[in-house]
Amino acid sequence: MAMNNIYIALLHHPVKNRNGDIVTTAVTNLDVHDIARAARTYGVKGFYIITPFEQQQEFAGKILNHWKCGYGAAYNPWRKKAFDIADVTDTLEHAIDKIKMREGTEKVITVATGASLEKRCIRHKALAEKISCDTDAYLFLFGTGWGIADDVLESADFFIEPIKGPSDYNHLSVRSAVSIILDRLFGKR
Amino acid sequence: MAMNNIYIALLHHPVKNRNGDIVTTAVTNLDVHDIARAARTYGVKGFYIITPFEQQQEFAGKILNHWKCGYGAAYNPWRKKAFDIADVTDTLEHAIDKIKMREGTEKVITVATGASLEKRCIRHKALAEKISCDTDAYLFLFGTGWGIADDVLESADFFIEPIKGPSDYNHLSVRSAVSIILDRLFGKR
Repeated sequence: MAMNNIYIALLHHPVKNRNGDIVTTAVTNLDVHDIARAARTYGVKGFYIITPFEQQQEFAGKILNHWKCGYGAAYNPWRKKAFDIADVTDTLEHAIDKIKMREGTEKVITVATGASLEKRCIRHKALAEKISCDTDAYLFLFGTGWGIADDVLESADFFIEPIKGPSDYNHLSVRSAVSIILDRLFGKR
Repeated sequence: MAMNNIYIALLHHPVKNRNGDIVTTAVTNLDVHDIARAARTYGVKGFYIITPFEQQQEFAGKILNHWKCGYGAAYNPWRKKAFDIADVTDTLEHAIDKIKMREGTEKVITVATGASLEKRCIRHKALAEKISCDTDAYLFLFGTGWGIADDVLESADFFIEPIKGPSDYNHLSVRSAVSIILDRLFGKR
C-alpha cells in the first residue's frame, strides 16, 4: 500500500457550533497528542492543525516544539516521533499548498469526514482500495466543534461514510473518529 | 449480534509507570468523555472507571453527575446518553461483582488489552465471532499510564492482539485504543 501520501487536517475553522453558526474553536492539547499518535501509527505523512488565530497558532506551536525539540523530545522519544509529522497552519488552502509543494504535484484529493454525511458517501473499503492503487496525495478533513462548515464539505472530492456501530448513536469524539477511520483504511488485521 | 453483555473497565490501578513500577494514575475528564461516547456508539452496556482513591472517585462521580443529571444533561442529551452507561468503582474485583449481579451470572469473561502483548493473543475477528455466538458477559480491560499490571494481565481469560497499522509505531492513546478495538469487534461496515 502506498502509504507515503496520506495527510490529515484538523479544522478549527470554518466549523459549526451547536446552532449551525460558523465559528472558530480552540486548539486543545489532547487533540494534538491523540491525533498525532494515531496518524503516526497508521503511516500518515503530515498532520495539519488549522486555526486562523495567531495566538492559537502560537499555542499549538509551543506544544509541538516541546515534544519535537524541547524537554519532551528527550523525555519521550515516541511522542517526538508522533509530533514530527505535525504542523500548524492558518487555512485549509495553505495546508493544501504545503502538500502540493511537498509532493511536487498540483493534485491533492480531499476527503471530508462527518457524523451526519448522507449522500454521495464513499465506503471505507472502496476508498482504501482506491488509495492502494493510486499515487495521488490524499488529505482527510476532520472538523472540531459540531463539524466542518458546509461549503468546505461541498468542495471536498469525497465524503467518507459515517462510522456506525450496532446502535443508532453517532456522537464520537474527533479523536475517536480519526483513530477509527485510519484503522478502517490502513489497519493491519 | 448479542450486544447486551459487553462491558469496559478503565483501570487507574494497578497500572505501570514508564519504569514498570505499579502506580495509580489520575482520572482524566477527557478519558471519561471519549470512552463513554465510543462505548455508547458500539452498544457497550457498562463502562467502569476504576480508581482506589476516594478523592478520585468523587472527582469522577462529579463529572458523571454533571452529565447524567446536572446542567449537562439538559445542555447535551447525547452526552447524557453516553454517560448513562458509566460508573465509578474502587477495584476491578468490585466491577466484576457488579456485572455478575447485573447479569445474574457467576461468569464474566475478561479480555486484557495492551500494546505489547505478544503470546496467547486472540485475534479481533476470532473474538468477534466468539462473542457473537455467546451469551456470557465480557469485560474488556484497558490500562492507563504505561499499561495494565502484569498480574492482572496474567489473570485475564483472553489477551486481544495489539492494534497494528502499516508502521512499527504502536503508541496509541487509550482513548484511540478503546475506539479502534470496539470498532474492529462491533463496527458496521
